[in-house]
Amino acid sequence: MQKVILDCDPGHDDAMAIMLACKHLDVLGVTTVGGNGYLKNTTRNALQVLDMIGRSDIKVYPGHAGPCTAPLVIADNVHGESGMDGPQLPPPSKPAESKHGVDFIVETVMSTDDVVLVATGPLTNIASALNKEPEIAKRAKGLYIMGGGAYCGNWTAAAEFNIVVDAEAAYKVFHSGMPIYMSGVNLTRQCPVLKEDIETMRGMNKVGKFAAELLDFFAGGGDAHLHDACAVAWLIDPSIVTSAFLHVDIELTGTLTRGMTVTDLRPLQGHTPEADIDLTSKKRWDDAPEDSPFRGKAPNTHVGIRLDFEKFRKLLLDTLRTYE
Amino acid sequence: MQKVILDCDPGHDDAMAIMLACKHLDVLGVTTVGGNGYLKNTTRNALQVLDMIGRSDIKVYPGHAGPCTAPLVIADNVHGESGMDGPQLPPPSKPAESKHGVDFIVETVMSTDDVVLVATGPLTNIASALNKEPEIAKRAKGLYIMGGGAYCGNWTAAAEFNIVVDAEAAYKVFHSGMPIYMSGVNLTRQCPVLKEDIETMRGMNKVGKFAAELLDFFAGGGDAHLHDACAVAWLIDPSIVTSAFLHVDIELTGTLTRGMTVTDLRPLQGHTPEADIDLTSKKRWDDAPEDSPFRGKAPNTHVGIRLDFEKFRKLLLDTLRTYE
Amino acid sequence: MQKVILDCDPGHDDAMAIMLACKHLDVLGVTTVGGNGYLKNTTRNALQVLDMIGRSDIKVYPGHAGPCTAPLVIADNVHGESGMDGPQLPPPSKPAESKHGVDFIVETVMSTDDVVLVATGPLTNIASALNKEPEIAKRAKGLYIMGGGAYCGNWTAAAEFNIVVDAEAAYKVFHSGMPIYMSGVNLTRQCPVLKEDIETMRGMNKVGKFAAELLDFFAGGGDAHLHDACAVAWLIDPSIVTSAFLHVDIELTGTLTRGMTVTDLRPLQGHTPEADIDLTSKKRWDDAPEDSPFRGKAPNTHVGIRLDFEKFRKLLLDTLRTYE
Amino acid sequence: MQKVILDCDPGHDDAMAIMLACKHLDVLGVTTVGGNGYLKNTTRNALQVLDMIGRSDIKVYPGHAGPCTAPLVIADNVHGESGMDGPQLPPPSKPAESKHGVDFIVETVMSTDDVVLVATGPLTNIASALNKEPEIAKRAKGLYIMGGGAYCGNWTAAAEFNIVVDAEAAYKVFHSGMPIYMSGVNLTRQCPVLKEDIETMRGMNKVGKFAAELLDFFAGGGDAHLHDACAVAWLIDPSIVTSAFLHVDIELTGTLTRGMTVTDLRPLQGHTPEADIDLTSKKRWDDAPEDSPFRGKAPNTHVGIRLDFEKFRKLLLDTLRTYE
Repeated sequence: MQKVILDCDPGHDDAMAIMLACKHLDVLGVTTVGGNGYLKNTTRNALQVLDMIGRSDIKVYPGHAGPCTAPLVIADNVHGESGMDGPQLPPPSKPAESKHGVDFIVETVMSTDDVVLVATGPLTNIASALNKEPEIAKRAKGLYIMGGGAYCGNWTAAAEFNIVVDAEAAYKVFHSGMPIYMSGVNLTRQCPVLKEDIETMRGMNKVGKFAAELLDFFAGGGDAHLHDACAVAWLIDPSIVTSAFLHVDIELTGTLTRGMTVTDLRPLQGHTPEADIDLTSKKRWDDAPEDSPFRGKAPNTHVGIRLDFEKFRKLLLDTLRTYE
Repeated sequence: MQKVILDCDPGHDDAMAIMLACKHLDVLGVTTVGGNGYLKNTTRNALQVLDMIGRSDIKVYPGHAGPCTAPLVIADNVHGESGMDGPQLPPPSKPAESKHGVDFIVETVMSTDDVVLVATGPLTNIASALNKEPEIAKRAKGLYIMGGGAYCGNWTAAAEFNIVVDAEAAYKVFHSGMPIYMSGVNLTRQCPVLKEDIETMRGMNKVGKFAAELLDFFAGGGDAHLHDACAVAWLIDPSIVTSAFLHVDIELTGTLTRGMTVTDLRPLQGHTPEADIDLTSKKRWDDAPEDSPFRGKAPNTHVGIRLDFEKFRKLLLDTLRTYE
Repeated sequence: MQKVILDCDPGHDDAMAIMLACKHLDVLGVTTVGGNGYLKNTTRNALQVLDMIGRSDIKVYPGHAGPCTAPLVIADNVHGESGMDGPQLPPPSKPAESKHGVDFIVETVMSTDDVVLVATGPLTNIASALNKEPEIAKRAKGLYIMGGGAYCGNWTAAAEFNIVVDAEAAYKVFHSGMPIYMSGVNLTRQCPVLKEDIETMRGMNKVGKFAAELLDFFAGGGDAHLHDACAVAWLIDPSIVTSAFLHVDIELTGTLTRGMTVTDLRPLQGHTPEADIDLTSKKRWDDAPEDSPFRGKAPNTHVGIRLDFEKFRKLLLDTLRTYE
Repeated sequence: MQKVILDCDPGHDDAMAIMLACKHLDVLGVTTVGGNGYLKNTTRNALQVLDMIGRSDIKVYPGHAGPCTAPLVIADNVHGESGMDGPQLPPPSKPAESKHGVDFIVETVMSTDDVVLVATGPLTNIASALNKEPEIAKRAKGLYIMGGGAYCGNWTAAAEFNIVVDAEAAYKVFHSGMPIYMSGVNLTRQCPVLKEDIETMRGMNKVGKFAAELLDFFAGGGDAHLHDACAVAWLIDPSIVTSAFLHVDIELTGTLTRGMTVTDLRPLQGHTPEADIDLTSKKRWDDAPEDSPFRGKAPNTHVGIRLDFEKFRKLLLDTLRTYE
């Protein structure tokens, strides 16, 4: 089983990601961060989700309460006051660890081969770990993130929540050299919460009922997408996502575009009227001469472009069915 | 016939736009700007194109040599040293007018009802005209531009040439209140130069042969698209383009995104796995509460999204056939 | 007599500058700009000041109502609703010219040798003239501005009003190659309005009484300085100002520093405990090796550092006495 | 004795700061950071300085190798390849601690009352400590920094090295609420290295000779100032520095001004021709109405303005004399 550390800010879709991960991956620990909610809440929520799915053996290490530079913004308009409103849950059966999440990441990656990091909240902890021990960029096998977007945002017209909340951290991560697999909102919006699936979950078992209650709240306002679960699903079954290897950089200074994952899509721009983003394109970032404005920069990110929704649904529902 | 002023920087695709415009629109004058080439060249090229198509009755008014703020950058990597390399053309049969292009725009729009402005180069002249006489924003019937992109660039990963070259001018224009019809590279890349069409043109007549020679050079390096002609074709036949009315703003300060036409696509974001940009979406920019981060700003631009390429081809080829 | 064009936005201190200029310089015309007040008002105020001092022979050419890019901000908190509150003045004896101020500047500079431009408002007109006819940068003998600051602002902590209001125009001007003499707020704050001088003026003559009434209002709130008059006084008598030839650039993108005249003071940094800005310093911008971070850029601006206030006072009071 | 943690990047002037601190303050530990040189070197240099002055009892905790966001830049043009070129020193008598510098800062401040932090390098470690444990902003008694400038830079025209190298960290620190005492280059340039003082040191004792050799190299290129020593001297004897309590913020996005300590000097702007920065001014940041552009923000930093150089010299020379 692939060893992973889950760095997250549950969050409804983080909870779904945890449910997927705990059945298919070897979760070495969960680290939490301020993001969808305050750190105190995201940590408690992580503990409660692990209790609920019978995996209180997995330890939770609280990391940073907020970004290193920017002020913290939370998404209580989406996730409610608790950061995971909806289901009524008993208090956690045990407390979080006293070791700092960043220290757990650094120590674990440095002492364990082939760890994959999965980050479904702001990249504060990952950036801080990279700063404390730059070697983890090479030691970790990869980083799967939910964040950004190849050509769109959600929190602003140009930027997605997880990235814009700690753009400086994202900048650090995307410049680190670590292999990044980016599930941006362009991908995760292909992954809607369907009403019929909620009902299917509700009838399954205790965990399915919990998932249904999460999604009742999450989809209450209308559209909702299982953003964070995409990042984990991609790691579990790579055939779920079709990606392109592209250059992605983080805009730090834009008035309108701060926190944008500026993705150089030029190699994928279609040349037929039918396809604008053409995954069959053979164009390369370095086709143009070195001094040409059309020349891009070397790819650093596997950008998810197409999601096989039916395969994703099946994975999710099948996984929930294996719980009690 | 719709009255228009063509503000352009020919430029191969500007030349094709002029050929379209002169048969279907009442061209009150052509104003030129530094962009694809230096002003001296774009002015001469405009005169030569008008000579070639037998329309030397249309006057050419040179405008600004370069942006009001930023230094001029030209696209000689695309259009060659002359700004319109390829065909051998005799010197212009007459000189350009001495009246400044900006003064021509201001005086014409203020004295004539229902003029449409078409701008296929940097927006320097249009912005300067708006500054000299802000009333033209209301007097003009609309502004059709080739420039920007709804979700991609060409000159940089995020920005298109015409906008990034004079981003401050674009900012002025997009904040002016004038009704804007934007043919960005997302649209114009749906409009490739086909080899078979070049050969069809070559066999038509003198103007067709000229067009073919232009496109021989333009498409010489591989891909080429009739960017500027799209803006004119949309005005001639609105059914060629499907657009969405969206908020577009210009990024002035971004390190990676300067000159980006930041387009708020959130109302079009699809909610099925099939469509990411969903033109059937009923979502509105003001669906979210006023204080929500998900709330956008009021639309100011008709953003071209889908081009009917076959209809465009037919218009172009049919038009060229009517020349001698 | 030195030929000048006064580009201004009266404004109390602009009015004092006009009084100085009209006695010592050959004023070819006055151009107006939106700044301290709206263009309509600054133009009327200019006409009224010229009437009052018996110089209605000097023509007034209205230029731009506001910046080319940024939205207009006016300083009615300083100058009142009319842009020059205080004295009661009859309506202008004649209207402003219909020729646009920018056209007047371009035509005059191109047809007249050795014109000096004096700009005491936002640099909108000067930048627009430079854009319409770049040759004026070489044809004009110099540009004296009130604007910016060598190490301080007034409208913000970092920026002065005239520059920050149209930072893009200032950028154009400081990059034009025209010889610039900058009276920034670091200099003009050495030039206070003294109560005793107001009373001296009041007793002089009609123009002195008008000046006193202007300054009653201007200094009403406490501190006031004759900012714009410094720029003119420097031109009339160069011994009034001690300057240093330094590199000045305009910050366009700073969150806190937009519109700052970033002045490279490093060649003047003192090396004794006594003097921080050391005008006797022999250090040069190019002392450091070409690749050193300590290397500056070549000087482009004569930056006023010290003002001889007593000499200034004498010039002003002596000049006012020569009026009727 | 005042308890302090020294966070530094020796560095010649850091070394002088350590010599001062170890005689007058209770140094709980030294933490190191990448800045003047690479972390490996600044850590070794710190150990060697402590050995040299007979204080190997003070432990050294290496912190961050470079900024959290920006890439590391070092000042080897000033400090040489080793970060402290000049004297030949034996290898450290013992290694640095394995505890991370940031952890040492957090644990010490949280467990000890009234600790003062002194930071004479980039603020990377201090910002990271604030992020790991925000409470230290209240627990620490204050933060004395060498960095920034009230109205000038050194590394760029607008910014000083320590701040510009990790501007994001500085932003975090200046927004933390911790009481800051800023020795910027405007102050520290009042503190030159005098040739005669070097010779006095050389004749004193072993430590004096070491100091002289440091300063031989440091002042070799001409001007040199004991920047870092000012921050420590201010803490040891507050009468050495006259300061003003002002608002200081960090520019993160400026093209020309990134890393500038934007200091709102408006309350100190003089109103007589004699004084531009008037420490006797009674003006306040909140004199202007709340909606006025002239209204500043509440002070957050004690900005050093004048240094009593003779008192500083005496403190330094007297202190060195007490070594062996």
